[in-house]
Amino acid sequence: MTLRVGVIGTGMIGRDHIRRMTTVLAGVAVTAVTDVDVATAKKVAEGLPGAVLHATGEDLIADPAVDAVVVCSWGPTHEQYVLGSIAAGKPVFCEKPLATTQDACRRIVEAEVAAGRRLVQVGYMRRYDAAYRALKEVVDSGQIGNPLMMHCAHRNADVPSFYEKESAITDTAVHEIDMVRWMFGEEITAARVLIPRKSRNGGPLQDPLLLILEMAGGALVDVEISVNIRYGYDIRGEVVGEDGTAALGDLSPVLVRSAGQAATPVPVDWRERFLRAYDVEIQEWVDSIAGGGVPLGPSAWDGYAAAAVSDSGVEALRTGTRVPVTLAPRPALYDAAVEVPR
Amino acid sequence: MTLRVGVIGTGMIGRDHIRRMTTVLAGVAVTAVTDVDVATAKKVAEGLPGAVLHATGEDLIADPAVDAVVVCSWGPTHEQYVLGSIAAGKPVFCEKPLATTQDACRRIVEAEVAAGRRLVQVGYMRRYDAAYRALKEVVDSGQIGNPLMMHCAHRNADVPSFYEKESAITDTAVHEIDMVRWMFGEEITAARVLIPRKSRNGGPLQDPLLLILEMAGGALVDVEISVNIRYGYDIRGEVVGEDGTAALGDLSPVLVRSAGQAATPVPVDWRERFLRAYDVEIQEWVDSIAGGGVPLGPSAWDGYAAAAVSDSGVEALRTGTRVPVTLAPRPALYDAAVEVPR
Amino acid sequence: MTLRVGVIGTGMIGRDHIRRMTTVLAGVAVTAVTDVDVATAKKVAEGLPGAVLHATGEDLIADPAVDAVVVCSWGPTHEQYVLGSIAAGKPVFCEKPLATTQDACRRIVEAEVAAGRRLVQVGYMRRYDAAYRALKEVVDSGQIGNPLMMHCAHRNADVPSFYEKESAITDTAVHEIDMVRWMFGEEITAARVLIPRKSRNGGPLQDPLLLILEMAGGALVDVEISVNIRYGYDIRGEVVGEDGTAALGDLSPVLVRSAGQAATPVPVDWRERFLRAYDVEIQEWVDSIAGGGVPLGPSAWDGYAAAAVSDSGVEALRTGTRVPVTLAPRPALYDAAVEVPR
Amino acid sequence: MTLRVGVIGTGMIGRDHIRRMTTVLAGVAVTAVTDVDVATAKKVAEGLPGAVLHATGEDLIADPAVDAVVVCSWGPTHEQYVLGSIAAGKPVFCEKPLATTQDACRRIVEAEVAAGRRLVQVGYMRRYDAAYRALKEVVDSGQIGNPLMMHCAHRNADVPSFYEKESAITDTAVHEIDMVRWMFGEEITAARVLIPRKSRNGGPLQDPLLLILEMAGGALVDVEISVNIRYGYDIRGEVVGEDGTAALGDLSPVLVRSAGQAATPVPVDWRERFLRAYDVEIQEWVDSIAGGGVPLGPSAWDGYAAAAVSDSGVEALRTGTRVPVTLAPRPALYDAAVEVPR
Repeated sequence: MTLRVGVIGTGMIGRDHIRRMTTVLAGVAVTAVTDVDVATAKKVAEGLPGAVLHATGEDLIADPAVDAVVVCSWGPTHEQYVLGSIAAGKPVFCEKPLATTQDACRRIVEAEVAAGRRLVQVGYMRRYDAAYRALKEVVDSGQIGNPLMMHCAHRNADVPSFYEKESAITDTAVHEIDMVRWMFGEEITAARVLIPRKSRNGGPLQDPLLLILEMAGGALVDVEISVNIRYGYDIRGEVVGEDGTAALGDLSPVLVRSAGQAATPVPVDWRERFLRAYDVEIQEWVDSIAGGGVPLGPSAWDGYAAAAVSDSGVEALRTGTRVPVTLAPRPALYDAAVEVPR
Repeated sequence: MTLRVGVIGTGMIGRDHIRRMTTVLAGVAVTAVTDVDVATAKKVAEGLPGAVLHATGEDLIADPAVDAVVVCSWGPTHEQYVLGSIAAGKPVFCEKPLATTQDACRRIVEAEVAAGRRLVQVGYMRRYDAAYRALKEVVDSGQIGNPLMMHCAHRNADVPSFYEKESAITDTAVHEIDMVRWMFGEEITAARVLIPRKSRNGGPLQDPLLLILEMAGGALVDVEISVNIRYGYDIRGEVVGEDGTAALGDLSPVLVRSAGQAATPVPVDWRERFLRAYDVEIQEWVDSIAGGGVPLGPSAWDGYAAAAVSDSGVEALRTGTRVPVTLAPRPALYDAAVEVPR
Repeated sequence: MTLRVGVIGTGMIGRDHIRRMTTVLAGVAVTAVTDVDVATAKKVAEGLPGAVLHATGEDLIADPAVDAVVVCSWGPTHEQYVLGSIAAGKPVFCEKPLATTQDACRRIVEAEVAAGRRLVQVGYMRRYDAAYRALKEVVDSGQIGNPLMMHCAHRNADVPSFYEKESAITDTAVHEIDMVRWMFGEEITAARVLIPRKSRNGGPLQDPLLLILEMAGGALVDVEISVNIRYGYDIRGEVVGEDGTAALGDLSPVLVRSAGQAATPVPVDWRERFLRAYDVEIQEWVDSIAGGGVPLGPSAWDGYAAAAVSDSGVEALRTGTRVPVTLAPRPALYDAAVEVPR
Repeated sequence: MTLRVGVIGTGMIGRDHIRRMTTVLAGVAVTAVTDVDVATAKKVAEGLPGAVLHATGEDLIADPAVDAVVVCSWGPTHEQYVLGSIAAGKPVFCEKPLATTQDACRRIVEAEVAAGRRLVQVGYMRRYDAAYRALKEVVDSGQIGNPLMMHCAHRNADVPSFYEKESAITDTAVHEIDMVRWMFGEEITAARVLIPRKSRNGGPLQDPLLLILEMAGGALVDVEISVNIRYGYDIRGEVVGEDGTAALGDLSPVLVRSAGQAATPVPVDWRERFLRAYDVEIQEWVDSIAGGGVPLGPSAWDGYAAAAVSDSGVEALRTGTRVPVTLAPRPALYDAAVEVPR
């Protein structure tokens, strides 16, 4: 009953998912791999008893020993592999972004709608984090009343050299963009970016930023984006309701009293903070599709919406203005698309 | 060596300051009172052995048994009593606002400058709160690098019926307006108000609001203003620096584990949260002027600047636009005006 | 390369481990089950494709399709199945207790020593909890100096009706007994029980208790045992060192401000608190033995030592005196027995 | 209506109380001082306008310009000055200990009983600390059920060179001894001291210690005494009730995220931690006696009981045994002696 997965892309994240599916999760085996970097893919295949090395993603998708596909290749190739998987009628898990343009995302949505059933899941793993889930549970319970605002902070100790100006929106805040759509259960309708003075740690980057998102129901979300804050990786969120607030908890494994202070450690990076969320994400994906079911996680629509909001965010960053988000009408296939995946 | 204080205005806050100066603080005695409500003033005077009841504020200011004046009367009368005190060469502590218009505030500034020495202090008590002082100490120490942003929340369980739309800026956020000027040691240059959907608790009010302030040095401040949030009075603040952040601490006197949760109490109202800050504020004022010294707390300039920023905030609330703050040139008398008062 | 496991005992904990090995963990499959309650075992087997139902534990151990054994049967039968596994040369994971008497534990130790290699692991899962591991890491780092004391609390909301007077030691505190041996890396040499007034919630039980343990190196451990404290399941621990302390952290997924307080949830029971620790425990056991390696977790010696300390604790509870712990000499096989299992 | 206070003893604590009564508190003035170190006393007197320097404590007590006496002299002289104040019918605040022997304390109790009204207050300031008061309020509210245990820790960064073996009980834990009598509203009936391995920081001292106290109603209190723990001054307490627990809160003024951790400062010493408690203690004492009333704080009986428990604690430390506490019958004058002073 093991789900046989083919992985397209054996770079860092691809190898991490392979490790996860091989040594951490139940009910799944990696049976095929491919990568444009053939040497790496070959080495990975050799470490996986019974796995086949394919020359192309198309070959991998066509392999009858592949029940489902995981796409971890370079962003610009996502569209073709996701479309290929849809065409083959195989479930496909695509690492974010779903595709590099809104139009490409929309083509995927249309292909999936044409196929008539959900096959695509996008890798927004925060929906699988225990703290975010606990937060959403409180919000949904009505304990704090109708949610009116959300304060978020997305802080990285530093970012790699290829990180660009727009990355603050497209790579960093995109996680909050997906998360708040899921948290509030509604679309984002406009974005605005406010620009404080620059950190000396950010080099040429405009860092930090304050992203403001408007939700369809009128709630307001502010996201501090600080990607060179040195002290650690810190993800924070507080939903402000009519009668109270709910925030991501402390999560500290240990409290040390030493040298004049009581201190808890801050995660070093996103791997440390969201390691379990990745595990849960893939396990739930495997479980949902193993018996022929549909994936319950972030959908192609979610990937499209994230792309659309990102585009507005990037324009807002460039222009300094409030930029509305325009979405195509949502196909009925995604009626439950913004729901909690459990 | 006791400082003899005359109190103009024996309403709630006036009586509280009288109680404070009589039964809590050292080195100060209330020797004169007055109020337009003569009956109340009379009753208060009778409870103060040796205190004289005056018919008018002007009489009280002129009383040779009054070394310094505390103004707690109705806002529109502040200007005349503060100007009167300056004219008499007597130190005057004026509850906020310094005056009800920018122009009035400026006339006070000009009178004080003409008098040639600082006589006026305005009642912004947060600068005297132990938590805010600890926060400023960390910021000033450089431990978190150059401060770039500050996130604030000002939450009231509820507000009285006379609270109006503009009160969110002029009565509530004005505390943050003064606090961030002091925290950053620089002026506010623009204000903007973002409006989320309304709480059902707020009646006709637009509640909550998100106020955005721009500091002269480029730092950005966001202030959540929620004045009907039911759960308690909660004042929060986090300064985001280049290398880390510093936030107001927990301050909980007790942690109770009971009925499925670990909980700390939230203050009921501002009295509970800032009781000590009021004590410290007046004690430091008394100490600073007792030997003929100048007051070190919020100055007439601070009162003027707060009024100017409030005006911009109110306009921003009305228009939905970013409204610059225009200030007159700052007289040399206030060179140290935005410094920590100790 | 899947490890084929046979499970003896399909009661609550047995079924939970089967679920874990089938739907959560990687590299393991349940290929055989047995139970004295044949009907239950039959139903469990039917839900496991490819699994065989055996009439007896001995049959299951002998099954060539069983690489390793998990013992979850009734305590008094543990000895025979663990000895049987050792005799068959198969790795065996035995839920606590290793056996119901010190003597039985010692016979297991002797059998394993005679077999010449470690085959037995005992189910003390706290060593696999992320918070305890983070705590031990701080202690081992030397950051707080030499550890001198440890304060623990083991609190249950309530206990089942079959819970007896001695259960406070043998079922409840036994987790702390194993944990502190691991935390300090040394044996416990004496136990003492102090008895406060009784809770009205405890019925005939003497609840709570304060257990005092003396470590071989002189450190002192106190353990509050409260098993009817209603508010939730709360496990706490703080190691006091020469220069500071380190405590289990907060772990709260969410902080809710509501109705006058800021509150974090307390786990309902041990399942919620230690769910992940069980997963990690079994995954690490599977990984350690899958390639023919030895189990790295709590050993037969640890099981024996826990039994010996429990016996002293029970006597201390009965007599009100300090009761020394006497252990047989530790065979060389267990030289590393009290080490962190990673 | 100012209370005129004479201070016997102008050492560190005496000068601190003089500063407090002169520059912090309301309604009190220091009108007389004396000390065996005449030079110091003279200098102090010179800094206090209107204060008289007396040659002896007896002269000071007899001074008609002294309404009440504060005793801060060397411990062995407390008895004579307190008895002298009682004889003169003047309220007397005596810094701890009330006297250096149980017998001396008892003579004071007898003298006060003979005088027929409460004149004596002893300087146990924890009853005036906001956190301890909040804790007691929760316990008294019944929210956590009947209190059954209390866990305390008394940690000093270091202690002065004259600190002796017994000081751990008589100088350090004596604060907890008074506090738990007040917290539980009942006497301590026995003491026991458990001795862990020594800290390298403690020199010849046996440090840390675990003091166990038994309350009259059967509750059990454990007190960790660590007086060289370097990291700061940390006072902790958690009352364990039938249905929950209540602990001293966090009290942190600031939370700093920096260099890989989120940290709150720990107080440097008892001055920082209990500064306000001292202020409140003396202010409430002044207020209670100013109009001729009786002091409501720790009584001569409390001083005697603390001495008796200390003696048992010291014997327990010396002998390693459980030592009962024997108290004389409590005179009716102290019926309310263990109550919260407000």
